[in-house]
Amino acid sequence: MNMRKIITVAALLLVTGAGAFAQQALWGGQQIISPEINADNSVTFRFVAPKAIKVQVTGDFLPTTPMKMGDFSFDAPGMADLKEGQNGVWEYTTEPLESELYSYSFIVDGLSVKDPNNAYLQRDIASQTNYFIIGGGKADDYKVQDVPHGTVSRVWYHSDVLGKDRRMSVYTPAGYEDGKTKYPVLYLLHGMGGDEEAWLCTGRAAQVMDNLIASGRAKPMIVVMTNGNTLHQAAPGEDASGMYKPYNCGSFDTSFEAHFKDVISFVDSHYRTIKKSSARAIAGLSMGGGHSYQISLNYPKTFDYVGLFSAGIGIRQGDDSGYIAPDFYKNTYEKLDVLFANQPKLYYIAIGETDFLYKANEELRNHLDEKNYPYVYVETPGGHIWRNWRIYLVDFAQRLFK
Amino acid sequence: MNMRKIITVAALLLVTGAGAFAQQALWGGQQIISPEINADNSVTFRFVAPKAIKVQVTGDFLPTTPMKMGDFSFDAPGMADLKEGQNGVWEYTTEPLESELYSYSFIVDGLSVKDPNNAYLQRDIASQTNYFIIGGGKADDYKVQDVPHGTVSRVWYHSDVLGKDRRMSVYTPAGYEDGKTKYPVLYLLHGMGGDEEAWLCTGRAAQVMDNLIASGRAKPMIVVMTNGNTLHQAAPGEDASGMYKPYNCGSFDTSFEAHFKDVISFVDSHYRTIKKSSARAIAGLSMGGGHSYQISLNYPKTFDYVGLFSAGIGIRQGDDSGYIAPDFYKNTYEKLDVLFANQPKLYYIAIGETDFLYKANEELRNHLDEKNYPYVYVETPGGHIWRNWRIYLVDFAQRLFK
Repeated sequence: MNMRKIITVAALLLVTGAGAFAQQALWGGQQIISPEINADNSVTFRFVAPKAIKVQVTGDFLPTTPMKMGDFSFDAPGMADLKEGQNGVWEYTTEPLESELYSYSFIVDGLSVKDPNNAYLQRDIASQTNYFIIGGGKADDYKVQDVPHGTVSRVWYHSDVLGKDRRMSVYTPAGYEDGKTKYPVLYLLHGMGGDEEAWLCTGRAAQVMDNLIASGRAKPMIVVMTNGNTLHQAAPGEDASGMYKPYNCGSFDTSFEAHFKDVISFVDSHYRTIKKSSARAIAGLSMGGGHSYQISLNYPKTFDYVGLFSAGIGIRQGDDSGYIAPDFYKNTYEKLDVLFANQPKLYYIAIGETDFLYKANEELRNHLDEKNYPYVYVETPGGHIWRNWRIYLVDFAQRLFK
Repeated sequence: MNMRKIITVAALLLVTGAGAFAQQALWGGQQIISPEINADNSVTFRFVAPKAIKVQVTGDFLPTTPMKMGDFSFDAPGMADLKEGQNGVWEYTTEPLESELYSYSFIVDGLSVKDPNNAYLQRDIASQTNYFIIGGGKADDYKVQDVPHGTVSRVWYHSDVLGKDRRMSVYTPAGYEDGKTKYPVLYLLHGMGGDEEAWLCTGRAAQVMDNLIASGRAKPMIVVMTNGNTLHQAAPGEDASGMYKPYNCGSFDTSFEAHFKDVISFVDSHYRTIKKSSARAIAGLSMGGGHSYQISLNYPKTFDYVGLFSAGIGIRQGDDSGYIAPDFYKNTYEKLDVLFANQPKLYYIAIGETDFLYKANEELRNHLDEKNYPYVYVETPGGHIWRNWRIYLVDFAQRLFK
């Protein structure tokens, strides 16, 4: 067989390896590039749809419209029209974009469609969206760079409290496997509907840690990403119950917080950790911020670093409606007194200006101010979005274990 | 805050956590179930498209049409029409299906669309497709079962031969972290356009190994899944070069095979392996079958188990066209004599009846027959498809290290 024939066979291997669907893509369609990041950081989207009447793109790089539904404000996504050119290829080019990770979808005659020329998707809860990264600024930390990389493992542990096996993601820093060093641990928790993949996928945690550690901005550390939905063992598709649809899933019933001792015990017995509060941090976004708040309060002298990112901390010691919080959620202010008596090295609160949890966090800040408890506060534009949580992780990680 | 309010906030957390796109899904659209696996193992697909004229589903559970393009035969995917019911919900129910992992797409007025109600996709080369699993038969081995689970890690290693860092996926069996036992290793290689994710994602290798090991059908082993495209470090999106489009990528130039000593050396120095040929297997599909063939020939006394799954083994000792194979690919029959002189415990050839590589594998079998070299041969219906490669992995893994 000669080289040309090898290449032909290779092309066939390719086509058939890809199954029936790729055949269409390779033989029926046009090979186009989308998205194309141009030299000035504008981005061109292309979509083949010879029969379409209207093709639009929606994504978080387009100007949004502020909306309100009752108490709840959010930014409605922008849309832009693609123009039809030759051979049914529709096209739209953005303005030059700031460095960021952006996600988008096409809308073809009202139908939401992924970009078939960008096979890379990130899942957030039940939605898969295409994404791309504009470098040259803060999003360089979200990119895979040619630096030493940590190992990312999906690991199963047993929880006695929950009576089941569960899955976590663990990042160990570059060099972990080659040495005897013990490392501090950051426990990093996701929001409602998320799972043990969320911080890795949409949060870019492995890339962020690789880049911060390689540049000396963060200390080498282990990052443990749990699954905050105790009804399940693992992310949908990785759970023995099958491919459940991740909507209303999350645990607000103390079960996640109560089982967290099983998490710490597993990590401390399976990894080379420094088993001291000064080498443990806990942080989370939204529901995971609530979990971090409760866990740090209920596990005294366990974490010297606490990060509340857009945290769901509204659950208090009982309230006007007759609702009685379970013990785990009770007496939070008294527990805060204990926590601050131990002089944590960092109590970190971060939230977006338009976040619907702003008030609950403001209330906590007011209480800390009254008590003269020291904390770091970061406020960013925008609301309850991953863009902010990536920013908080980059900032928070640099403040740890120093 | 009372429980009802917590739930409301939870719903909001959810919505906003999901970003702009999920808002549409939750507020604008109907919550429907698709695919729904019925009691008789028929499957109902649903799609909301009030304005569509025609909605179809295409997938590998529908009868295919045999096609030919020159020498190359393949099965064209079947299609079925959904019927429009109330509120613009289109629906189609299959016949009862055999136990298998199936993939599918919708086609809405000629446009290929993913199922927005099934967030779980598997990527094969550049294509993402929705999938579902029908249990009750062989596909039970592809499902996550409530059995002890191995750890799956993405690990970076350095290759001196290639002068770069590269990524591999490593499966360590349940119990690995808790003991001192040394394990045999299966090196499992993907096809052209694939990467270190392919066997895990489309091949279900972690589930297969968990289930075979838990039921005592396979010995506990480490499974190492490399990236067979030496131009790159890692899967697209995990490579420092960014989100390359995985079409014509694969290595047929001996570079992958030559660098394989770096792989073995990394694995043997970082995992508790049994460092003997009797505890090493190598197997691959398509291009990876070609790699396995060449590596087993060129690393004498390294692997006692060799698996060629629909293998691309057409590259020989030079040929009529004046093409001269590089040394690594030369004298394969002489190298086969050496390999069989060492009495491998298993030489395994598997291929589909209609695979376009059938002849090349038949030629190898004829040669082995002439020489009286023992091998196991498995032939299955169908062609060059993942359905077959999963079957071969399940069969092959049960024959190892016994």
